[in-house]
Amino acid sequence: MAKELKDLTKRADNYSQWYNELVVKADLAEQSAVRGCMVIKPYGYAIWEKMQRQLDDMFKATGHVNAYFPLLIPKSFLSREADHVEGFAKECAVVTHYRLKTDPDGQGVVVDPAARLEEELIIRPTSETIIWNTYRNWIKSYRDLPILCNQWANVLRWEMRTRLFLRTAEFLWQEGHTAHATKEEALEEAKRMLNVYADFAEKFMAVPVIKGVKSANERFAGALDTFTIEAMMQDGKALQSGTSHFLGQNFAKAFDVKFINKNNELEYVWATSWGVSTRLMGALIMTHSDDNGLVLPPRLAPIQVVIVPVYKSLDQLAEIDAKVAPIVEKLKAMGISVKYDNADNKRPGFKFADYELKGVPVRLVLGARDIEKGTIEVMRRDTLEKSEASIEGIEAHVAALLDEIQENIYAKALKFREEKTTTVETYEEFKEKIEEGGFILAHWDGTPETEEKIKDETKATIRCIPLDGDKTPGKCMVTGKPSAQRVIFARSY
Amino acid sequence: MAKELKDLTKRADNYSQWYNELVVKADLAEQSAVRGCMVIKPYGYAIWEKMQRQLDDMFKATGHVNAYFPLLIPKSFLSREADHVEGFAKECAVVTHYRLKTDPDGQGVVVDPAARLEEELIIRPTSETIIWNTYRNWIKSYRDLPILCNQWANVLRWEMRTRLFLRTAEFLWQEGHTAHATKEEALEEAKRMLNVYADFAEKFMAVPVIKGVKSANERFAGALDTFTIEAMMQDGKALQSGTSHFLGQNFAKAFDVKFINKNNELEYVWATSWGVSTRLMGALIMTHSDDNGLVLPPRLAPIQVVIVPVYKSLDQLAEIDAKVAPIVEKLKAMGISVKYDNADNKRPGFKFADYELKGVPVRLVLGARDIEKGTIEVMRRDTLEKSEASIEGIEAHVAALLDEIQENIYAKALKFREEKTTTVETYEEFKEKIEEGGFILAHWDGTPETEEKIKDETKATIRCIPLDGDKTPGKCMVTGKPSAQRVIFARSY
Repeated sequence: MAKELKDLTKRADNYSQWYNELVVKADLAEQSAVRGCMVIKPYGYAIWEKMQRQLDDMFKATGHVNAYFPLLIPKSFLSREADHVEGFAKECAVVTHYRLKTDPDGQGVVVDPAARLEEELIIRPTSETIIWNTYRNWIKSYRDLPILCNQWANVLRWEMRTRLFLRTAEFLWQEGHTAHATKEEALEEAKRMLNVYADFAEKFMAVPVIKGVKSANERFAGALDTFTIEAMMQDGKALQSGTSHFLGQNFAKAFDVKFINKNNELEYVWATSWGVSTRLMGALIMTHSDDNGLVLPPRLAPIQVVIVPVYKSLDQLAEIDAKVAPIVEKLKAMGISVKYDNADNKRPGFKFADYELKGVPVRLVLGARDIEKGTIEVMRRDTLEKSEASIEGIEAHVAALLDEIQENIYAKALKFREEKTTTVETYEEFKEKIEEGGFILAHWDGTPETEEKIKDETKATIRCIPLDGDKTPGKCMVTGKPSAQRVIFARSY
Repeated sequence: MAKELKDLTKRADNYSQWYNELVVKADLAEQSAVRGCMVIKPYGYAIWEKMQRQLDDMFKATGHVNAYFPLLIPKSFLSREADHVEGFAKECAVVTHYRLKTDPDGQGVVVDPAARLEEELIIRPTSETIIWNTYRNWIKSYRDLPILCNQWANVLRWEMRTRLFLRTAEFLWQEGHTAHATKEEALEEAKRMLNVYADFAEKFMAVPVIKGVKSANERFAGALDTFTIEAMMQDGKALQSGTSHFLGQNFAKAFDVKFINKNNELEYVWATSWGVSTRLMGALIMTHSDDNGLVLPPRLAPIQVVIVPVYKSLDQLAEIDAKVAPIVEKLKAMGISVKYDNADNKRPGFKFADYELKGVPVRLVLGARDIEKGTIEVMRRDTLEKSEASIEGIEAHVAALLDEIQENIYAKALKFREEKTTTVETYEEFKEKIEEGGFILAHWDGTPETEEKIKDETKATIRCIPLDGDKTPGKCMVTGKPSAQRVIFARSY
């Protein structure tokens, strides 16, 4: 492992390679035998579980319940909503048969041609269609509304270029699908969930995000408005980290979902959908980690504190074991996840490198001499600073340090984003600045044509029209036409 | 709802129809637009979530970690293990294409013939193959063992006849896949997980189970031994509720997974796999529920206590609201999930019937006169008995009652099973008794031929060779040949 660590590419040398290597070396995920599909390894999955648990609590606190809808979707469902089919039908895994048979010409199995499905089934790329087809039977009157369902599921999109966590064919996510009696209520819900995502990103992932609305070009296929949270990675690129869609009545119309409103009139139901995925793992890794490996926010770290003994004899180890036991117990009682690694088959130096690579926020090292002095060595992963603390009361010290690390890595990421955010007035300036990476605040005339032109010429897209901040109107940097407010441009993942 | 309840078929009239109706009426699940695939509705999913959480805690307490492996499996993987392919290849959903395109002849989308996969992919019916293909790269030495992974996932088997929860094409489950250095350790693991399943079934689901080994005919495809827990439903049929497999070195050989053992020799790895699924929902429903609807064990009930106010004026309601608020708070503080249903648009009678149908273990009813008297009406769902209790200290009363209900429904199910379990000596007697339903303990000569004959003639199978209980040898009821011990026969789901 110490060797593997030494082999980790440096961010400055090749950021993309650093990321790919880190995901594998830190035991987060790896490629599988199936093109574009990943194996999420136990350590990576433990982080994802922590994310899930926290998000799920936040969804429930905002009144949502979980449900489960089928993996497979009849092909014809996709064509019901015109924009949706454009966006999703092209990249689907298609189930055409339901049986294999022994190969008559030899070993192995072949598809049984007699078992062809009458209508092909699609592995869900997202579930609006099957869910709205189900909601038709659930909704008769305004009394049945709102429906506030979420589902934790796997989805599949046949992506051409894949990267672990960032873009994989199969990925894990949650998708909320809500149904409302009024437009206002649906819009409010879409914004509420955007705020839940932003809170989660900032308070738990320690990833600062910009909340905004997508331009028409970047909207979800079938939505009237897509709200987004955008984060900046250490290479200055943007990563779309979560989206919440106001779907209007599009899916209700496509699947004929009507209700009797309070005025006793038949009306189409209003909808939202919102999701975050294992892509968040990519955002987490790329925002905080460094050339030594992962840096995890304490609130999502599977192991928050590791304790490593340093000893010359098994007698010394026994003495350290005894000293550590009550510390472990107290930390656990405080809800802090702690690992005491007294395995005798690895040297301390190996363990240090390994836990650094894995991003464990706090490391405590205890030796025989420390015990004599009544002190313990404390290393914080975010700054790699070592200090000495008293064994007495170390638990409170560690708890405070975990909070400090959580705040510090957020502040560091925020400072980085602010330094890499520029305001430009001219397209010339824009083309120069975009090469340096980062977010650019610029005026835009609101047309898809101008956005396309900028994308073609600079590879930058509008990440969002920010909801907060400066709303001063101006003139489009490209066409000089009126602009309602500055929008954020960046190259993105 | 009150009307719907009245419509529920009685168990005595048609047990099977009673079950099908109850699942739908109690809002647990429903059929989807995709053949054999169900929608798990929020109330049903809430029970499943409680099961998941508890099982997951038990897996972690026994040293397991979660991970995630791909949904899709290359077709050729299935043929690697000879028995496995026989058992699973025949009922698979097959992905042959990865793109749709606009229908050139009209509206909608069609499969793009240009996007045919070189090798077809199978939606996992179970994940031994893809996981053991992955483990090959994880295991080099005995130091890498054991691997104790579990995965929560959806799987798909193209079943011909499906029933909600009991047998569906897609279902949710967990599958543990462990790798060990020795046969003994793998066998111990398979038995450990069988015990975890039995503990979960008995202590949380309140479903008594018999632990045993499957006969060769009923073994998992690819296993050397399949351990099982078998439960008895109210119609006397058996429901296999969880299985744990000792896989020997079969999958290690099929996927070439070797390790250097402590003696520095190259050896194949030993394996287990074990799983329980949403089928447990079927077991839960069919064990306890009655003609009034669901009966849920308190430990898995999404709502453990419901409080319903009875009032004639909004003033009275306000008074009741005020009295109930601290009760709700105290119950919540005790970790009891409670719902106060003071919705004004439904009559108390409707609410009573609804919560009975939904199986809420304890119902409290509070009226103005009760408040005067300082009492509250308590109804327990398992016996439908009503009693009066003092408002003062009602929280402790409810907590004790929940424990009592949990124990009572377990005891009731156990008594039922014992009454419906017969010991027979002759095949004549067997054929008579099997018509009455229930478990039959009989001697069997241990051959697949005799088992087949019994199955053909009576539709009964060997549910298991019990691990506990009477081990006296005897003579096979059919052939008169020696029998090592009595085994359990039953008709089954």
